[in-house]
Amino acid sequence: MSETVQLREVGPRDGLQMTATILSTEQKLEWCRREVAAGLVDIEVTSFVSPKLAPQFADAADVARRAILIEGCRPAALVPNLKGAQLALEAGLTSLYFVMSASEAHNRANVRRTTEESLDEFRRIIEHRDTMPGKKAWIGSGIATAFGCTIQGEVPERRVVEIAARLAEAGADGINVADTVGYGDPAQVRRLVKAVMDEVAPLPVACHFHDTRGLGLANILAAVDVGVRSFDASLAGIGGCPFAPSASGNVDTEGTAFLLERLGLDTGIDLEALMALRQEVERWLPGEQFARGVGVAGLPRR
Amino acid sequence: MSETVQLREVGPRDGLQMTATILSTEQKLEWCRREVAAGLVDIEVTSFVSPKLAPQFADAADVARRAILIEGCRPAALVPNLKGAQLALEAGLTSLYFVMSASEAHNRANVRRTTEESLDEFRRIIEHRDTMPGKKAWIGSGIATAFGCTIQGEVPERRVVEIAARLAEAGADGINVADTVGYGDPAQVRRLVKAVMDEVAPLPVACHFHDTRGLGLANILAAVDVGVRSFDASLAGIGGCPFAPSASGNVDTEGTAFLLERLGLDTGIDLEALMALRQEVERWLPGEQFARGVGVAGLPRR
Repeated sequence: MSETVQLREVGPRDGLQMTATILSTEQKLEWCRREVAAGLVDIEVTSFVSPKLAPQFADAADVARRAILIEGCRPAALVPNLKGAQLALEAGLTSLYFVMSASEAHNRANVRRTTEESLDEFRRIIEHRDTMPGKKAWIGSGIATAFGCTIQGEVPERRVVEIAARLAEAGADGINVADTVGYGDPAQVRRLVKAVMDEVAPLPVACHFHDTRGLGLANILAAVDVGVRSFDASLAGIGGCPFAPSASGNVDTEGTAFLLERLGLDTGIDLEALMALRQEVERWLPGEQFARGVGVAGLPRR
Repeated sequence: MSETVQLREVGPRDGLQMTATILSTEQKLEWCRREVAAGLVDIEVTSFVSPKLAPQFADAADVARRAILIEGCRPAALVPNLKGAQLALEAGLTSLYFVMSASEAHNRANVRRTTEESLDEFRRIIEHRDTMPGKKAWIGSGIATAFGCTIQGEVPERRVVEIAARLAEAGADGINVADTVGYGDPAQVRRLVKAVMDEVAPLPVACHFHDTRGLGLANILAAVDVGVRSFDASLAGIGGCPFAPSASGNVDTEGTAFLLERLGLDTGIDLEALMALRQEVERWLPGEQFARGVGVAGLPRR
């Protein structure tokens, strides 16, 4: 039996942040259902942000409530603040990812808070969760711009490690180190991700890469090498970076699954089914740019 | 001082095999001149194949003779047979790459010979070179479809190692392990390239990857990990695979240089100058598909 690896689909959240077309609630749920049928069960189904800022997620509560009912699905949501966490928990979700940036400049631009204020907000989210009856929801935190920032440039690695430590101390159930703008490289991944893992052990550390500069899958390989076994990806690489409009977006789920399987890890995914779904989702999003790679070229002949 | 790595530009040869537009001799030489000015001096400038089969290389001898005169340039050419090698040596080239396939089916399709016949032909090329007066030309051999073949499917790794051993025994000055159709993955790269290196040591082993299934740069990372320090790449990823028309082509030179530099290796390349040249070459080849990655998104902000 080969070792398992978790692949989290973030297309319905990170991918749809950037698309011109807003998918219907039905389409989002169909996407989740078919992805679960293809063996990919961990899905970030939506983001509990203000509908004024992100109208594409105005149906967040509805999507969450209905995704929970999909057999086999383990839905999660992104929450930028306490209000979002409250709404996500009310909808019945048991897995949330808070997000803050290691870059002070990006955190202000993204959630209009200093990083200190974001850490305070995360503590309030954990406190709120702990007052709720029943089984505790799993609440991790992403660290955005961990490999550099389009606004402020370099982000010191010790700062990323320190934020990870403070999130862990505040009660995070897991840390997701995110290369939000595609600045990371494999040497940096091995160094920084290893440092974060050492700092927060035994908490699980996941990685979130963008393929903006073509290094997405090389970065995943580097993270696998240092022991990471949980990755985010977006079907067809949907998503992107507003600062580099014609560049590639998130690492593509099908390419990531192909790489992980070829490395001898078990994703539980039926790649042919996933690639068929990719074609369907492409039809829903006319005019978008999609990843190339295995989803276009097809699997090698055996 | 960081360790150096050789990056070989193969765009004027492998890239132009696939393009609809045939570049003029002047454009090919301008490409070489500007690439040398950007610090990339090892260039596969042409292919000595029959002009009937590949009219885009009808100017092979002229390109070779004039590329030799570019200050700082180290031009090489691809030769599929003795006739090509004779013409390349007559033109004054001192660096040639023979090519044969590990896949019997691909070798027949590509050079209309069995692999045994190709090995015999390589011996004749080495014999021919050895009869020539003066300093011996460097003659390496590529092993195409080393990671699998679109015609016959899997190619046994022991077969690739055996062909490498026989080429070395025949007098090859170096071996280039090529993933002609983009089937390779990092696990396979580490295993197979390491086995070839062990077999032919101390001969140098280079790698040639295509990004058809998105793993091009991950494969380069894997090869660096096992000690490879010579890579082929094509500016803007020009080139491709006739069996997967909408898929990506060769790994892009600018993305490869970006990765290698980020891994702490010294390519000697000015990335900004290389990316400016990419834009020029793109203009010469209207309607082609070019790589995304760092050549589109630009270097990270520092």
